Amino acid sequence: MPILTLLTDFGTTDYYVAAVKGTVLRLAPGATLVDVSHQVPPGDVETASFLLAAAAPSFPAGTVHLAVVDPGVGSERRILAVRSGEAFFLAPDNGLLTPFLDGAEVRSVERGELFLDSPGQTFHGRDRFAPTAAWLLRGERLEELGPEVTDPVRLHAPAPARLPDGISGRVVHVDRYGNLVTDIPSAWLPAAPCQAEVDGHAVVRRATHYAGIPAGEAAMLPGSLGTVELSLNGEDLARAWGISRGAVVDIRWNGS
Amino acid sequence: MPILTLLTDFGTTDYYVAAVKGTVLRLAPGATLVDVSHQVPPGDVETASFLLAAAAPSFPAGTVHLAVVDPGVGSERRILAVRSGEAFFLAPDNGLLTPFLDGAEVRSVERGELFLDSPGQTFHGRDRFAPTAAWLLRGERLEELGPEVTDPVRLHAPAPARLPDGISGRVVHVDRYGNLVTDIPSAWLPAAPCQAEVDGHAVVRRATHYAGIPAGEAAMLPGSLGTVELSLNGEDLARAWGISRGAVVDIRWNGS
Amino acid sequence: MPILTLLTDFGTTDYYVAAVKGTVLRLAPGATLVDVSHQVPPGDVETASFLLAAAAPSFPAGTVHLAVVDPGVGSERRILAVRSGEAFFLAPDNGLLTPFLDGAEVRSVERGELFLDSPGQTFHGRDRFAPTAAWLLRGERLEELGPEVTDPVRLHAPAPARLPDGISGRVVHVDRYGNLVTDIPSAWLPAAPCQAEVDGHAVVRRATHYAGIPAGEAAMLPGSLGTVELSLNGEDLARAWGISRGAVVDIRWNGS
Repeated sequence: MPILTLLTDFGTTDYYVAAVKGTVLRLAPGATLVDVSHQVPPGDVETASFLLAAAAPSFPAGTVHLAVVDPGVGSERRILAVRSGEAFFLAPDNGLLTPFLDGAEVRSVERGELFLDSPGQTFHGRDRFAPTAAWLLRGERLEELGPEVTDPVRLHAPAPARLPDGISGRVVHVDRYGNLVTDIPSAWLPAAPCQAEVDGHAVVRRATHYAGIPAGEAAMLPGSLGTVELSLNGEDLARAWGISRGAVVDIRWNGS
Repeated sequence: MPILTLLTDFGTTDYYVAAVKGTVLRLAPGATLVDVSHQVPPGDVETASFLLAAAAPSFPAGTVHLAVVDPGVGSERRILAVRSGEAFFLAPDNGLLTPFLDGAEVRSVERGELFLDSPGQTFHGRDRFAPTAAWLLRGERLEELGPEVTDPVRLHAPAPARLPDGISGRVVHVDRYGNLVTDIPSAWLPAAPCQAEVDGHAVVRRATHYAGIPAGEAAMLPGSLGTVELSLNGEDLARAWGISRGAVVDIRWNGS
Repeated sequence: MPILTLLTDFGTTDYYVAAVKGTVLRLAPGATLVDVSHQVPPGDVETASFLLAAAAPSFPAGTVHLAVVDPGVGSERRILAVRSGEAFFLAPDNGLLTPFLDGAEVRSVERGELFLDSPGQTFHGRDRFAPTAAWLLRGERLEELGPEVTDPVRLHAPAPARLPDGISGRVVHVDRYGNLVTDIPSAWLPAAPCQAEVDGHAVVRRATHYAGIPAGEAAMLPGSLGTVELSLNGEDLARAWGISRGAVVDIRWNGS
């Protein structure tokens, strides 16, 4: 039985995550369940999309990834079932699956007889997503879930850009430690000195790991997703500088 | 090996949940463990009871539900083992299992040789509940855990009432999104317009899902437990209006 | 397939825990994963060490315990693989494993071909610890991970002391309920009355369980780790008195 990962904005104080898991285990006994996170801020599709793109590559082939951050639950928004490479993804059609859509098989889940009879339209996680996940976990065919979709909703994040005298990118995630994860590929950094600027703060130091950064100084370092991070050593840079996701990061060649 | 669900007020910053799980897995190898929540406010038996009643029906037959919110740990309070339908429940005798008691087989766990020798009386979760859960997970008999109990402690929640000109109920849960979950059955709402009132705020709009509620307006909608919810679209109604569990919700037929 | 426990300071809002778990399950299919906690304060090796020492004894023989609180990630600090009794431990060489080092086999993990190729030096949890854990879970030999270590880093916590007229110890943990867990063995308490003092507050009452403490009064009681706890009944003593980990606890015989 393959693995099911779960990523939601349900939090961990409610019964919602357990109801999804119980339903999956009832319909796909023996499945292995792994939480990605349930602490996505309510309705924050961008964060969910980032986390799923970061976590999914670590899982074995055949893993089913269920992501329910779904402010449109109960509306006409579609439920997407996607096969991308050797992984499967289930999520509302709200852009969450953007990182996995290129070259993927994308279906709209419309096989109503899979869904649970339920008293309302507010908990598709339990009533529609969970039984559809169980279907995939049991090895049933993606194609039978519904028609192909050629126009899935996509998030339109600005891409990092190479400029004549530098690079322009953004903070795409602030992690628990206050590291600023950017979308700038680490490989784009020149060997020569350069300066990063974010919200009026300048960073010139380069490091390979946090403990190599002098106390109180910020540094650029190659992060775990292949992109540049801005970090302090043992302190929270995001809090110190008041930076949040979306902040522009400009890198300029020194002397330019 | 059946599923064990775990619901506690232990939080996730301590070693308590892990010690319970390790003990269960040592005594019932291969059990599947599913967290309901460990974020029940310390000692809040009502919240634990609500969450368990909401989550348990999603799990397969044979599931053992372990709920340890136990301010009386170490006192003379009994430990109850309950068979209700095809599910098993273990919890302190403090009302937590109220939703499962009617028509159930209820035993007081007094089989002392199952319990772990341990240095204190403060952690029955590890020392008594976990080995008892393992006993049930291994398929041993409920009857052998101890004598029948005919007077289990029950929570006495006021029931929602149908009045000549309306309905009177309560907020029984505030979820992560700030939705006000009431105890009023959705089926009691009339087809004709009506008005809900909670703490001086009036709600007349009806909706079937959150995204169908106009921005800034509250609505009544049929929730995922078969009861009425009061909600905003994408905002936290409980915080906006300062409502918490227990608030009275009065529904009146319009014009009455 | 044995159990893997996970203890980190990664939090639950990021993709870090999931990436570790996915990697383990990819390299050691069928492993059972159990979270100890991911809420260790960032870089707090002492708390991690305490929690692991408290949780590990509950797990069955053969369990692999992975603990990644690793402010030195990417530096020259070693990764330790330890066999202590019938359990295995993996952690950075920063003192976290101090409670398990006596009489243990301690190895430095230097088998580089196990590690994942990865874009940076900031996430050894995924890139080095997870594949090493998978190695142990698959039943491969500890000895082959690297050379023996005779000088592992140790935390030097002050030990509790028996004095002529009392005991001197410390608060080693404040739990979710605000109980003050000390390092003073419960067995050291005299049968005769005595007085505990912490930060100017005196405690003379003795109890065996929380519910036996009169409202508003603090008491000493034998805790679940075999040491003395200071507690209120249903209230948060640490908050009430402003006590945190490290506070000195002096116990004096009455009349002395």
